[in-house]
Amino acid sequence: MNVELDNYPHRRFNPLTNSWILCSPHRAKRPWQGQQETLEDKVIPEHDSQCYLCPRNSRANGNLNPNYSNTFVFDNDYAALINNQPKLLIDNDDESNKSLSSLLKVEIVRGECKVICFSPKHNITIAEMTEEDIIHVIQAWTKIYQNSFSIPFINYVQIFENKGSIMGCSNPHPHCQVWSSESIPEEISKELKSMTKYYEKNNSCLLYELEKVENGQKDLSNIIRNITCRYDNIFQCSFPYSMGIHQAPVDNMNHSHDSHLHLHFYPPLLRSATVKKFLVGYELLAEPQRDITPEYAASILQKCSEIHYKSNIH
Amino acid sequence: MNVELDNYPHRRFNPLTNSWILCSPHRAKRPWQGQQETLEDKVIPEHDSQCYLCPRNSRANGNLNPNYSNTFVFDNDYAALINNQPKLLIDNDDESNKSLSSLLKVEIVRGECKVICFSPKHNITIAEMTEEDIIHVIQAWTKIYQNSFSIPFINYVQIFENKGSIMGCSNPHPHCQVWSSESIPEEISKELKSMTKYYEKNNSCLLYELEKVENGQKDLSNIIRNITCRYDNIFQCSFPYSMGIHQAPVDNMNHSHDSHLHLHFYPPLLRSATVKKFLVGYELLAEPQRDITPEYAASILQKCSEIHYKSNIH
Ligand SMILES: O=P(O)(O)O[C@H]1O[C@H](CO)[C@@H](O)[C@H](O)[C@H]1O
Ligand SMILES: O=P(O)(O)O[C@H]1O[C@H](CO)[C@@H](O)[C@H](O)[C@H]1O
Repeated sequence: MNVELDNYPHRRFNPLTNSWILCSPHRAKRPWQGQQETLEDKVIPEHDSQCYLCPRNSRANGNLNPNYSNTFVFDNDYAALINNQPKLLIDNDDESNKSLSSLLKVEIVRGECKVICFSPKHNITIAEMTEEDIIHVIQAWTKIYQNSFSIPFINYVQIFENKGSIMGCSNPHPHCQVWSSESIPEEISKELKSMTKYYEKNNSCLLYELEKVENGQKDLSNIIRNITCRYDNIFQCSFPYSMGIHQAPVDNMNHSHDSHLHLHFYPPLLRSATVKKFLVGYELLAEPQRDITPEYAASILQKCSEIHYKSNIH
Repeated sequence: MNVELDNYPHRRFNPLTNSWILCSPHRAKRPWQGQQETLEDKVIPEHDSQCYLCPRNSRANGNLNPNYSNTFVFDNDYAALINNQPKLLIDNDDESNKSLSSLLKVEIVRGECKVICFSPKHNITIAEMTEEDIIHVIQAWTKIYQNSFSIPFINYVQIFENKGSIMGCSNPHPHCQVWSSESIPEEISKELKSMTKYYEKNNSCLLYELEKVENGQKDLSNIIRNITCRYDNIFQCSFPYSMGIHQAPVDNMNHSHDSHLHLHFYPPLLRSATVKKFLVGYELLAEPQRDITPEYAASILQKCSEIHYKSNIH
C-alpha cells in the first residue's frame, strides 16, 4: 500500500461484505468539542449482590444462579427471539393486494436467546482472563453451536459480546449473548454470497487467502486474550467493543465453500479513552467512513504490549 | 398488518435497500440498567462568542463569518473529502499480484464538504423554526445540489444533519453538512438498484407506490417542521437524530427510473429522553434490530402535537 494513503481520502473495498468504505485519515486531526464519555475505571467488587449474573444471586424471573466456577449459561429473560409465538396472520400472499404486500413484506422468525457468563468474577474482563479461563468460554460457545444443529427452527447462531456501557452493555459482569434464529441474518447472507462468488471464481476460500496477507496466528484462546489485552493497553482503560463470531449456518447444508470461522471486533474509540467515533449522518445515510487507515490501526495494536497494563497492580 | 405483530418477534423487509430487519417489540419492556445520557436542556445564548458558526465570529482557519441573517454556507475546514489529493500509486492492476489486489482494493475518491448554518441564532433548532426560515435552508440545499451538476468530479451530493451530542454533533448551533463525492455511496447504490428493479418489473416508482400506502403530505418545509417538532414533543426535549436527503446522483445520467427525492430520519431515542437504543452487537454483526414496530412508532408521532412544547414559553 502506498504511504500517501495515510494522508489522503480514498475508498477501501471490503471483499467479505462486497461493499466500500470511505477512508479520510486526515479527519482524525480535527479538534473535538463534542460528547465526552466518562471513564469507567472505578473499583468494582468481585461479587456484587445486586448483579443478576453473579453466582448465587437471583434473576429477573426469580430463578437463583448456581454457585458456578467458570462459565454459566442460561436463557435470556428478555429474549429478542422466541420459538412459541402464535402463527401470525401475515397477508403477504393476499391475491387482492399483491404489489402492495410485496413492498411491506413481513416474515415470521423463530429462535432463542441465551446469555453466557464468562466468569464468576464480577470485576474481570476477557482482556484480564487467562488462556485457560478463555478456553472454558470457547467450550461453551462450541457446545451451543453444536447443539443447534438438531434444533429444526434454528439455522444461524450469532454469538456476540457488547463490552462497556458505551457499547450498550448494561452490566459489567463479563458475559456474551447468543441469538439463534430461523433466518440467516443480513450480514451473514452477504458474507455467504461473497465467499461463494470467490470460491466459484478462484476455487479457494476468500478468508483463507486474506489470512495469507496478514500474520499467521496461534490458537483462538491466545488470539482473543491477546487482542483484548492490546485494546486495553492502547489508552490504558477497559476498552469497549462489540465482538462477534461468524461461522457456518446450522441449517445442515454443505458450507465448505462459503463459510470459514472468524471473529469481528468493532471498537468505538479512536482518539482517546473518552471520545468515541460516531457512526451517524454520513455513515447512516451514505457509506461507512473511517478516520484512520486499517494499516495505521493495525500498527497501533502491533506496538501495544501483550501484557495487560493492570497486571502488575493485581 | 396483524395486531399480533406488536407483541411477537418477526422480520420486516425494507424494499428500498432490499434487506431485512429483525423486529422484537416485546424487548422494549425489559428494564434498563445501562448508560443514561444527560439532558441537554440547559439555557444556551442566542449568540455564543466561542461558537465558530455564529455570525461575526472567526473559524478554525482564521476566516471571519459574515453577519448573516438566514443561512450561511462555507467549506468545511476539516473536510472528509477533498479534490486536490495527489494521484495515488494504487497497485490494483499490478499483474504480478492480481488475486491479492482484488481482495485489498483501493479507489481514489475526490469530492468536497460544506457546512450550512440554518440560522444566525445559536440556540434554535429546525423544530422551532418557522416554515419561512426552513425555506431558506431548502433553497441552500437546492443551490448546492444544482451547482454540483457542473462539477465533473462530483457524482453524488449527500446532505445530512447530526442533531444532538448523542448523535456526534459537536456544536449545538443549527447546521447541516454536505459531503459531495466522485463515487456513488453504498446506501445510494442499494437504493438505485432496488428502484431500477422495481421499475423494470412494475413500470412504476417504488417510492411513489410506498407513498400511496402512507398519508398524503404537504410541502417540504411544512413536513420538516412538523416532524422535527413532533419528535421534540415525544419526550419534551430537544430530540436528537441524524437526518439526510437522498436524491438523484448528479452524474448527468437519466435517473427518472431509479431516483425519487426523499428524506431519512434516524432517531436514537426510544424509551425516554435519556436512554438511547444502541446499535451494537447483534446489529453490527448480524442484522438491524428494532424494539418497536414501525406502526407503533408512527402512531406515537401521530399522537404528538404539531405545536412545539416550548412555544408558549417563548
Ligand atoms: O463532522 P463532525 O460533525 O465533526 O462529525 C460527525 O459527523 C460525521 C459524519 O457523519 C462522522 O463521521 C463523525 O464521526 C461525527 O462526529
Ligand atoms: O440485550 P442487551 O444487552 O440489554 O442489549 C444490547 O444489545 C442488543 C443486541 O446488540 C441491542 O439490541 C441493544 O440495543 C443493546 O442495548
